[in-house]
Amino acid sequence: MITGKNYIGNQLSAKGSNTFTTFNPELNLENETVFTEATSQEIDEAVNLATTAFKEFRTISGTKKAEFLNTIADEILALDDTLIKTYCLETGLPEGRAKGERGRTVGQLRSFANLVAEGSWVEATIDIAQPNREPMPKSDIRKMLIPLGPVVVFGASNFPLAYSTAGGDTAAALASGCPVIVKSHPMHAGTGALVASAIVKAAQKTGMPNGVFSNLNSSGIEVGQQLVKHPKVKAVGFTGSIKGGRALLDAAAKRAEPIPVFAEMGSINPVVILPKALENRNQEIAKTYAGSITLGTGQFCTNPGLLLGIKSDALSSFVNTLSQEIMDINPSCMLHPNIKKGYNANKEKIVSQKNVAITANYESELQDNYANQAIVSVSGKSFLENPTLHLEVFGPFSMVVQCENEAELEEAIAHLEGQLTGTVISDENEIDNYESVIAALQNRVGRIIFNGVPTGVEVCESMVHGGPYPASTDSRFTAVGISSIKRWVRPFSYQDWPNNLLPKELQNENPNSIFRTVEGERTKNKI
Amino acid sequence: MITGKNYIGNQLSAKGSNTFTTFNPELNLENETVFTEATSQEIDEAVNLATTAFKEFRTISGTKKAEFLNTIADEILALDDTLIKTYCLETGLPEGRAKGERGRTVGQLRSFANLVAEGSWVEATIDIAQPNREPMPKSDIRKMLIPLGPVVVFGASNFPLAYSTAGGDTAAALASGCPVIVKSHPMHAGTGALVASAIVKAAQKTGMPNGVFSNLNSSGIEVGQQLVKHPKVKAVGFTGSIKGGRALLDAAAKRAEPIPVFAEMGSINPVVILPKALENRNQEIAKTYAGSITLGTGQFCTNPGLLLGIKSDALSSFVNTLSQEIMDINPSCMLHPNIKKGYNANKEKIVSQKNVAITANYESELQDNYANQAIVSVSGKSFLENPTLHLEVFGPFSMVVQCENEAELEEAIAHLEGQLTGTVISDENEIDNYESVIAALQNRVGRIIFNGVPTGVEVCESMVHGGPYPASTDSRFTAVGISSIKRWVRPFSYQDWPNNLLPKELQNENPNSIFRTVEGERTKNKI
Repeated sequence: MITGKNYIGNQLSAKGSNTFTTFNPELNLENETVFTEATSQEIDEAVNLATTAFKEFRTISGTKKAEFLNTIADEILALDDTLIKTYCLETGLPEGRAKGERGRTVGQLRSFANLVAEGSWVEATIDIAQPNREPMPKSDIRKMLIPLGPVVVFGASNFPLAYSTAGGDTAAALASGCPVIVKSHPMHAGTGALVASAIVKAAQKTGMPNGVFSNLNSSGIEVGQQLVKHPKVKAVGFTGSIKGGRALLDAAAKRAEPIPVFAEMGSINPVVILPKALENRNQEIAKTYAGSITLGTGQFCTNPGLLLGIKSDALSSFVNTLSQEIMDINPSCMLHPNIKKGYNANKEKIVSQKNVAITANYESELQDNYANQAIVSVSGKSFLENPTLHLEVFGPFSMVVQCENEAELEEAIAHLEGQLTGTVISDENEIDNYESVIAALQNRVGRIIFNGVPTGVEVCESMVHGGPYPASTDSRFTAVGISSIKRWVRPFSYQDWPNNLLPKELQNENPNSIFRTVEGERTKNKI
Repeated sequence: MITGKNYIGNQLSAKGSNTFTTFNPELNLENETVFTEATSQEIDEAVNLATTAFKEFRTISGTKKAEFLNTIADEILALDDTLIKTYCLETGLPEGRAKGERGRTVGQLRSFANLVAEGSWVEATIDIAQPNREPMPKSDIRKMLIPLGPVVVFGASNFPLAYSTAGGDTAAALASGCPVIVKSHPMHAGTGALVASAIVKAAQKTGMPNGVFSNLNSSGIEVGQQLVKHPKVKAVGFTGSIKGGRALLDAAAKRAEPIPVFAEMGSINPVVILPKALENRNQEIAKTYAGSITLGTGQFCTNPGLLLGIKSDALSSFVNTLSQEIMDINPSCMLHPNIKKGYNANKEKIVSQKNVAITANYESELQDNYANQAIVSVSGKSFLENPTLHLEVFGPFSMVVQCENEAELEEAIAHLEGQLTGTVISDENEIDNYESVIAALQNRVGRIIFNGVPTGVEVCESMVHGGPYPASTDSRFTAVGISSIKRWVRPFSYQDWPNNLLPKELQNENPNSIFRTVEGERTKNKI
């Protein structure tokens, strides 16, 4: 049942008077449940409870944390149709997508459970004492990763399950031993509340300290700002717009004690289409990209918003084919009227710039909140001269940049802002001749793709979802995959510490039987 | 020969008109060489050259980088007495310290050389394609760490070799593949210039791109500020005061593209002395700590500036013994008149606070720039009520805090700012009874020491030199040891990338024979 209240640890709470509802974009009407925004006092309660919970939670074994994470996954699945229906009512996304995303969410939780149950992720590193070393004896020093403290997670509008309440950030933070306070996304507060209830149930079933998880409602920016400024909050995870992420980054930087903010923000995901590929696979590439551009109504962080090529008949023909292909796709619903409004405004901003040719624009009368997909084309020169053309248009929209030559193509890429992904479409071996174009692209992105599409982010250990600013606020971390746990931990050294007081991971006997680096060698051996 | 000029890559340059000299604190007079501060134009030249050099340097093999680092070490050693004499003339530190620090510097360079020559540090991780996976095929994804770009390193006043021109930050950045621009420390600009000449010679001998290293002189804060704000600079390393480090952090946070700043700043390194240890080893602990407090004239980041205990006759007696021991030590020279001025001012600020008892203060007339060591004592209550008492007094000074009871001790620790180290002095098993005191201490520090002193930072893989703010600006990294390379790199993914175009570290054949994580298993196997 969705109560519309906040979870302060295991307790439901609604002390405030600001309320809001979610919206059904398919039916263009408000959903019923009334949500109560968290008050300053409730924010403070949640953070204080998390701080107390941290004292216990940070020392809980990997096995127990794995049980907690797996139980969250079980409880999410137990929500069954209620969750799927609420998801669809609040997002306009189809049931298949809801189920797919639930699968991914559950998969992420279980992969973090496996990681911490196995235990080697803490990077235990041991240098043994050399009491007789000359000129100075060497101490025994042992290092491992430990959690930072309470983490605030902001749910993402476009991933109501996989990057929201129990999404990647939350799963990684809980796995690391950090309590989590979720600032629920107002567009899917009901979905968030259901998932929060699953987490709370799992926390109780597995004996986690009260306050290991809280879920706070809000419709504006105040709750989030207050959370980021709270002195007891130690790190922040965010997925959303550049404006929103930067505001949180700035707030965190101004604190008496600055804290890390990992924000995954805007990206237009450049795609470089090389000349021979264009000549030989014009139709196929156009069809594939029309699909990628409109997938999920274009509402993916990795949506290909920028296609770059070198001026040619083949490129002109590709623009036509792509434009036709995109017109053949049935428009679909956006997440919320405000998302549609933003899409229209940004699209309008782009097409009103000088020298922008609109080559496709779905102008038929559409159902409310459905997006009119579009393709535009500009010259390399215009793109280089006008940074407004680099704007992300969140939705089913892409811009083709027609460069004069290879040098201009390289320059256009080198002047891009940081991106999550870059893609190269090439005929076999054609790419070999574009070494410096590829080097420039690599320098601007976190992941580079050969002959594929950037949409569809595989959740695996090798994945990097992040990149130079503003793709993310710290390119040294990824937001997807088990390595994302490193955002929430710090290395810690024990010097000459008594063996019985060391955490199990560092004790001589290696009771958890984890891989450790002992005197430079990776081993499961005892000392 | 020390020219007093800047190195812009391999070229000497002195276009500016602002000049300064270094100072011999032992003799209390200015040294002869005149240094010319870098101009805005020279800063821009150095950064642009580094940006161009990065294109080549980022792709250079680990073996070649190791050769470069080892040659830097060789060239530093070849400077022989010239370097040692200049070091002593500019710091007032004795020859033994100069030689010891040179050994550490050379050791650091060689340990990074070994790291990159071996090559597994890039954390190569490979997930193999599953083209037949249902419902969606899985792509081939391969990840490794790649360098960020040009790094600015600020030399530290108190480590003219090991944390300055070719110190830990520089060695780690060069090892990672990042060009380095050093903002030379004005107090030891001659030492810095000699080391810079060694780096430039090594770069030329080993065929590194021009611009892989530059060394810029400055006596004020402008050069550093301009470097941190330069759009082509991608990261910053700093060791020094909280004021200086925070100013750089703030400048970096306000950039259009914020960049990571790793600043290792202030720390008072709390030492908790438990009651039984005090009773049984009063004299021994006092003697050891008098030595640690005055080591290097107290000018270490890990100097024990705060000793905490529970009120007792034994603690009173300890304060007396420590005070006597400290008076028995011969005062020594500080690095610079300004450091001495700062020491006196901060000491004065502390002793002028309410309820501070001065239990030792070396008041004899001293040689210029020599430090008057001192010990003060306060109650736990005063310490908790007055944050001014938490101020770092950089020099041979320590404060004893006498807490009412264990609860007050825990509270005093819990309210400390972040620290590099925490130390516990305990009789055998005594520590077992202080679980929550120790937990509070662990929460505030980066390294915890049992029955030792915090001074003397072992350079090894398990070392953490860093900690919660303000000990460092990002507790997720260490400034000492080979893991410090992670400050300057980011993970990068290749998706379905042609094998021959992958970096060697990720190619099927594993030509460098490094350890990789393939499908979750660590192995040197080919694919």
